[in-house]
Amino acid sequence: MMAQPTALLIIDMQNDGMSMIPSFRQVIPAIAQILSASRERQIPVIYKSRIHRADGVDVETFRRELFACRPFLVEGTFGAAVVDELQPKEGDIMVRGTRFSGFFQTDLQLVLTRLGVRRLLICGVQTPNCVRATVTDAVAYDYDVVLISDAVMAQTPEIHAANLFDMKNMGIGIMTVAELIAELNCD
Amino acid sequence: MMAQPTALLIIDMQNDGMSMIPSFRQVIPAIAQILSASRERQIPVIYKSRIHRADGVDVETFRRELFACRPFLVEGTFGAAVVDELQPKEGDIMVRGTRFSGFFQTDLQLVLTRLGVRRLLICGVQTPNCVRATVTDAVAYDYDVVLISDAVMAQTPEIHAANLFDMKNMGIGIMTVAELIAELNCD
Repeated sequence: MMAQPTALLIIDMQNDGMSMIPSFRQVIPAIAQILSASRERQIPVIYKSRIHRADGVDVETFRRELFACRPFLVEGTFGAAVVDELQPKEGDIMVRGTRFSGFFQTDLQLVLTRLGVRRLLICGVQTPNCVRATVTDAVAYDYDVVLISDAVMAQTPEIHAANLFDMKNMGIGIMTVAELIAELNCD
Repeated sequence: MMAQPTALLIIDMQNDGMSMIPSFRQVIPAIAQILSASRERQIPVIYKSRIHRADGVDVETFRRELFACRPFLVEGTFGAAVVDELQPKEGDIMVRGTRFSGFFQTDLQLVLTRLGVRRLLICGVQTPNCVRATVTDAVAYDYDVVLISDAVMAQTPEIHAANLFDMKNMGIGIMTVAELIAELNCD
């Protein structure tokens, strides 16, 4: 089978996630594994990060108070940088956004078009928020979407499962890291 | 309290919904009630409808086979029209889209800006798909979002509840028709 042009999209794996999301670190090894497998196969790697201006002017209305009290994901800070274990390399593509969907007022779609990508492998945090919003837009743009089920996470396993169920009904593929790597080995 | 400029957004209450979504009709009376209350108060009413070209060229990739076998929501057909009980009136705003989010490649945001709307009352079908995708984009655009909990619906009560939980965590307000009408009476 000739594989469709594919890219790996890693969502919001930034240092501030450690303090904001319980169990954030648990998902890092699975993402490291698919990241390494993608690099070996020259699959383009795209990091989407949520990064806010220091004054918070670009923070969602409902989080402005929280941000004013305890700023998060501020440009140029350690908190906004990608975690050590998943460091970008030269040639990776960095996309910066301020909303749940990685497509929302970013150049993600433009970059994917330029790369000729038709299939998006998606991992990162969190399943119900940035992951799902990005998946929804990816489906809207007619990408073939694979959500890597053990390389995304939510606050609880129940939230995670309910969201996977809904996204499956949106027509996306759901695969584990192991299943995906086995498939990549067959291409 | 001076109310923020508000609009009512009714999502995908079209005739084909009756055959595509079990219990679709159950939500109609609640929507009729908030529609009537909105009209009495001169709150602008916006109908977002999903409408496809007859050849299906604008259908999501994952539903193209389904559409080819049994077309749905085709422009100009009875199935694509708004259900009888919720008929639009002169002056209402019609927005036509082809994807889950009512904002996706439509002029919904432009219309809301022109109307000066800051608060969106959202109802329609279905909670996990078009409703949630539209809510997500409305939050991204910094609207004050109220989801009318008994005027939206999903395939099962569990799906409905799980999605309401997630959306509450996105910072939106959740109110019943009765609560909303009581609040409108106080403005």
